[in-house]
Amino acid sequence: MSDDNVVYVGSKKGPMDYVLAVVTQFNRGSEDVVLKARGGAIGRAVDTAEITKNRFMQNLEILDITTGTEELENEDGSASNVSSISITLGESN
Amino acid sequence: MSDDNVVYVGSKKGPMDYVLAVVTQFNRGSEDVVLKARGGAIGRAVDTAEITKNRFMQNLEILDITTGTEELENEDGSASNVSSISITLGESN
Repeated sequence: MSDDNVVYVGSKKGPMDYVLAVVTQFNRGSEDVVLKARGGAIGRAVDTAEITKNRFMQNLEILDITTGTEELENEDGSASNVSSISITLGESN
Repeated sequence: MSDDNVVYVGSKKGPMDYVLAVVTQFNRGSEDVVLKARGGAIGRAVDTAEITKNRFMQNLEILDITTGTEELENEDGSASNVSSISITLGESN
């Protein structure tokens, strides 16, 4: 899967910005779109998937959800662990 | 599955409180434990699953993750939608 299919969800924009990004990817012909988020943005990635499915693309399915742990380097050089999520969305036939 | 296997993750306690609840459920003989969270606590549910798996129960697997949308009634009687997550954890053989 090319990185073109990935929408990175952060904490600064509202869910609707990410919903628009997902819908745009499908309209450009992507067969699936992967939402990726870390830490405090994980809930927003779930919001994005649910809003897209319920309000904009009724034939959308959540194909897969995986979680992970990533190590981030702090400003002082120490390391922190942060959880991550990947939500794969695809259109049903 | 009985409700005894469900750990509801909120925003008030730290992740370690929920990790302890999950480990306790398995120690009492549960074959699987389901973490449930809504809205801002969704990220904490993912943290709980990841910390339990990585630090406390190396034979733990995430068996299933599902998301949903629930309608909450506000104090003024209006309704708001909130996303939810269910993470099913089980021990691998």
